[in-house]
Parts: sequence; structure tokens; C-alpha cells
Amino acid sequence: MTLSQVTLDDIRPIGIGAGILGTGGGGNPYLGGLHLAAVIREKGPQPIIDPFALADDALCCVVGSIGAPTVSIEKLPEGTEMQRALRLLEAHIGKRFDAVAIAEIGGANSMQPLIGGLQAGIPTVDSDSMGRAYPEIQMSSFLFDTSATAAPLAMVDAADNAAVLPHASSDKWAETIARNIAVSMGARAGLAGTIMSGAQVKAAGVHYTLSLAHHLGSAVIAAQRHKADVPAVAADALDGAVIFRGKISDVARRTTKGFARGGLSIDSFHNRDRLEIEFQNEFLIAYLNGEVAATTPDLICIVTEEEGEPVTTEVLRYGTRVAVITAPAPPQLKSANALKVVGPAAFGYKVAYTPLPGGVIGHAPQMQVKISRENL
Amino acid sequence: MTLSQVTLDDIRPIGIGAGILGTGGGGNPYLGGLHLAAVIREKGPQPIIDPFALADDALCCVVGSIGAPTVSIEKLPEGTEMQRALRLLEAHIGKRFDAVAIAEIGGANSMQPLIGGLQAGIPTVDSDSMGRAYPEIQMSSFLFDTSATAAPLAMVDAADNAAVLPHASSDKWAETIARNIAVSMGARAGLAGTIMSGAQVKAAGVHYTLSLAHHLGSAVIAAQRHKADVPAVAADALDGAVIFRGKISDVARRTTKGFARGGLSIDSFHNRDRLEIEFQNEFLIAYLNGEVAATTPDLICIVTEEEGEPVTTEVLRYGTRVAVITAPAPPQLKSANALKVVGPAAFGYKVAYTPLPGGVIGHAPQMQVKISRENL
Repeated sequence: MTLSQVTLDDIRPIGIGAGILGTGGGGNPYLGGLHLAAVIREKGPQPIIDPFALADDALCCVVGSIGAPTVSIEKLPEGTEMQRALRLLEAHIGKRFDAVAIAEIGGANSMQPLIGGLQAGIPTVDSDSMGRAYPEIQMSSFLFDTSATAAPLAMVDAADNAAVLPHASSDKWAETIARNIAVSMGARAGLAGTIMSGAQVKAAGVHYTLSLAHHLGSAVIAAQRHKADVPAVAADALDGAVIFRGKISDVARRTTKGFARGGLSIDSFHNRDRLEIEFQNEFLIAYLNGEVAATTPDLICIVTEEEGEPVTTEVLRYGTRVAVITAPAPPQLKSANALKVVGPAAFGYKVAYTPLPGGVIGHAPQMQVKISRENL
Repeated sequence: MTLSQVTLDDIRPIGIGAGILGTGGGGNPYLGGLHLAAVIREKGPQPIIDPFALADDALCCVVGSIGAPTVSIEKLPEGTEMQRALRLLEAHIGKRFDAVAIAEIGGANSMQPLIGGLQAGIPTVDSDSMGRAYPEIQMSSFLFDTSATAAPLAMVDAADNAAVLPHASSDKWAETIARNIAVSMGARAGLAGTIMSGAQVKAAGVHYTLSLAHHLGSAVIAAQRHKADVPAVAADALDGAVIFRGKISDVARRTTKGFARGGLSIDSFHNRDRLEIEFQNEFLIAYLNGEVAATTPDLICIVTEEEGEPVTTEVLRYGTRVAVITAPAPPQLKSANALKVVGPAAFGYKVAYTPLPGGVIGHAPQMQVKISRENL
């Protein structure tokens, strides 16, 4: 069963699920969840559209926040950024949008298309373009193997500043310019862009990921209530596996070129095994005793051992007891064009990408909460 | 007599005059002059409109290059940036422009409105908004005491990147965001903005400054030919004075916050007097033996002693024999609102502004080349 609307009760599970799907990045959905709750209290639930219910000629775009997640905790939004970005883009192209898709389901940007859609009276599509989180605009399945482009795009800030990029030399150039505009706007802006037809959303989207986040979060909450093995339940919901459990024994961070870069080590609870993970905003590569265990685009998620709550890169610290989950990336991130943008080499890792087997991300999830007997 | 058109023969005098009016900044007009010559050879002369011949409801804007003058020497334009910026702004507002005004007459941006106007088939107004050079968009008489705003503005680069700012919280915010976009675009972009009516141009412009640049440059060329005292002739054309002659004895430069900041000392040829000048892109304040001799918005210009050619901040060097000219700023830069933006305090100098007496900038110049008997 997939979501047909998002109500107040859905916010917490979506936030937990999106936090885990954020693979360490994407920002914390908590503040966005509070914001969404306020808008739902005023306007009622936000309708969610099944991607395959979209007309081929429906006009769609993505909407989200661009900037630094660290800033978003200190600099609260004015509140109507998403709606204003949508309206600005509509004014630029002279057409109204039929539906808003999700740029990234992982992290804080899971909430923004719900907030902006509800404010603008436009339903949200149950599809995103990552099935996880990535830091840049061009890292989007809506752009990998389609004729869609990141520009035109529209940006607004908490004050009265606005910008439109009518076109760009490439999606990477759109990212570069939009990023600098976001910096000018105080490292936080609302963005609407990547204009698509319904047919393009259907062809390129990572589908049912809002429902997946909800399903994953619901499973975590139920497992917490049953005092089950929460990391195992979360891994199960993603068709993934808990590959390591231990204590964070080292964290190294450096902020370079606008990214939170660094690495961490986790020492096993049970033996002398060590898992090392490197990150650039997101967890991108994991080495088990020096051997590659998983790489981007497959998901590497860290959750707390006891509660199964997501651990993002900015809260990593020595001594935290964690479990590491890996899960297969959605197939849209594994095409040759996609791997050029989100494969290990795109982030400077000179290793071949060996896909993890299986995977449910991008497929309609079975919405019953899976708590198997072994996990209870 | 003022200019009614700009032909090939006018390019060199305008370039020299604009170079001197640049007060050390504004970039070198030489490359722009070569570009303009190529466009004039293809399309013929560019018509120049007397500002007072503009209909009150004529639709006008400014066009120019935004970025770092140092970059403009290395990174040549694609060539149609000004025209494309104009067309993009027209597309955004859904109207065509009747005339293009000059943002700054000092330096390289003297040529861009001629190039862009000629390419787009739009005449250039014989008015600018500074009567000199300043580094930022909000430092414009078109904005000081009017209802005009810097945004909407449109920007394009040498490739296919484009940006529109539909509105901004303030003209300073428009500058901040546009500056960052220009950086993204390789520190050089074409910009069209500051949309005005003909009535606003007439009320707020610094008039006949293209003609003044031409007049000043012609005077310099004639004085060079007659082996006259070129600096004195140039000062005379500006109703200014040569306040110092000497050898540059020290130059200190630092590049901070996107500006070329620094200072220089000039030791007199004749006695132990020393003139010290501080600059932030432009020469902003001059001290004679420690006492303030002139400050922004009045013009402080350095020319070579022998040829009277402009010396810009980036070519300042020890040993150059120079003359320093000061000239009264146009009245549009001296209002209370204007001084908040371009007075000494706006650049961090804690001195009161004492206007130099007299002044011709912004008035229709007498177009005969003044070479007085004393100067020959």
C-alpha cells in the first residue's frame, strides 16, 4: 500500500525513514517536519499522486531547499520559500504545474515538496530522483537518461531576493551558478526546477520513495516499541543488510570545497574487525578490514544500535554505538550515464562499482511492517 | 557640440577619456574598443541620443560587463553578451527597450553599451550614472534619488548560461547576488538591468558623459600632437586641476573581499612634498603631506606626466612619472542619498566630504578642444 496523502501522523515515520535514506547527508528532517505539521494543521493533508497516475503531458518539476544543512538549523526559513519558488518558475514559463516531484527523499528535502505543494495547491508525486541523498542538482535520475534539464530553475530566499536561471550550459553549470546564488542568499534558498512531463517522471523517477520512507520509519517505530532489533528491521525494510555493529572509534572531518568531508572508523563489539567509512556529505564508501564492502550509489546508512535512529555525518562522534546498514541503490542510479555522475569515480574513489544484489528502492514497497520472528 | 553617433574615429578618444574618467578603476577600454570597431565595421556607426530627446515614457535600461577587470584581459568575451543580456531582460519583462543608457562612463564599460546597442539595434543615450567609475551596481545615480531599482536584471556568460533576478530586497542585495553569479560565470558576465523611463533617465542621469569622454580624449590627443602639457589640458577639460606631479615612490596592494585595495605614494619632482592616495579599485582619497586633498565622489585621476595617458590601479608601479588630476564630481553624486553610497564614509574613510568647487561633468561640454596658450 502506498501513500495517498500525508497527514500529521505520517510526518514522524517519514522523517525517520528519510533520515536513514539520507545515508548520513541530506540534513535533518526534524525542523521540516515541524513546519509541515503547521501547514497541515492549517490546510489539511497533502494529496500524494501515484507516479503512474500522472498524465503523460502533466507538467511537473522538483522543489527543495538548496544550501548548507548546517545553516538550515540556525537560519529558519520565512516559510513560503517553496511556494514562492514554484510560483516564480510558473511565471517564468507562463504555465502552471500539475504536480511536484521530490528531488531527494533522503534527509530534509523529503519534507519540502510536501510543504510547497500544500501551500501552492499542487499534489506531490510519490517519486524522487535519488532514492537517497546527494549534494548536487545534477545528481538526479530525472537528468541522467532523459532530455530534461536542471534549468530553467527559480530560487527565492527568506527575504525578497529571487533569481531565475532561464538556461545553462549543462546541469553541472546550473548547479554551480545556483550554488553561488544560494550562498549569496545566506546559504539557504528555495529552489524549483527540472521541468518534466508526466511521461518523463514515470520513465526516470525513483518511484514510491515517499511511501518507502514512511514504511521504513513505521517499521523502525514499531520495532522500537517491541524492543526488537531495530537496525535489522530497518535493513529488512530496505532489502539490505546490517553489515557491521560496533563503537565509533575515530572521526576525522574537514570542510573543503563546500562539503563536509572526512572519515570514521567503527570497531566491532565482538572481534577485532574494523569498518572504515569515508564521506563527502553522504557516506560514500565502506571498507571492512581494508577491503571495499560497499560504495556509492549503493546506500551506506548508520543508525544507532539501540534505537535505530539515523546518524548523520554532522553528529558522528567517538563512542557512539552504531549499526551500519547497506542497501542496493535503485536501478536508475546504476546506468552508465548515472554512474558517471554518482559512481565512486565521480567522487574521486578509484574503485570499480560492484552493485549490491537485490533491492527494493524504487519499487512499490509492501506496506506491512516487516518484523520477522528472528528480530523480535 | 555633443555626439550624435559613434564612428570608428571616435573610439580612440572615447577610450582615452573614459580611461581618465575611470579614476584608476573601471578596467581598460582598449579591448572593448577593438570589439566596438569590429561591430561598427560590420553594422555602421552607433546612433547616440541626447538624453533630453528621450520621450518621458521611453523604456530604457543600462547594460555593461560585471566581473573582475583583471579577468577581462585574459578571458575574452564571446562577443554578443550585451545583446543577449538585453534580449533576455526584454523577454523577462515582455517589452522592448527604446534606448540603452551607460552604467559607468569610466573605464571599459564605456564601450559595452555602444557594442550592445549596435548589435541589438537600440540607440545609446549620452548619459551615464556615475560620470566616473565605481565598482558596484548600487553606486548609480539612476538609483540614488529615484524609484528605479537594480532588479529586474539579466546576466549571460560567454557560453550558454543565463540568469535573471526578477526582484531583490535592495539594490545592494541585487549587487551581492549578481556579483556571485558573475563569479560563477568565470568572473565576467554581460548584465542588463536598472529599468527606467525616459523621464527617470533625464532626471537622474549624469548627462553628456560619452561626449565628455570623447572631448577629453580628443583634447589629450591634440595636446600630445602639439607636445603641450597634456595633464594640464586634461584637467582643464574636466574643469579640474593638476594637484601634483612626481614619481611613484611606493605601491602597496592587497586583494581582499573582491577588491584591489591598497595605496601609493608620489614624491614631488620639485620639493619634499608627498601625495598619498588610497584605492579600492578606484582612487578614493588623496592626502597631501598628510592632509586630505580630495575624496570620493570627486575624481582623483592619475595620468602619465609626458603623454597624459590614464594610469589604472593595476599598472601602478614604482618609478612611473605621473600627474594627479582632481575634478569635481557631478552633482548627482553629492546628494545626501548619494553620499551614503559613494561618499568617503561608504568606503570606510572617517573624513567629512568637502566638495571641490566648480565642475563640468554632467553638463553639456563645450566641444572645442581647449588648449590654452599657457599649456602649449
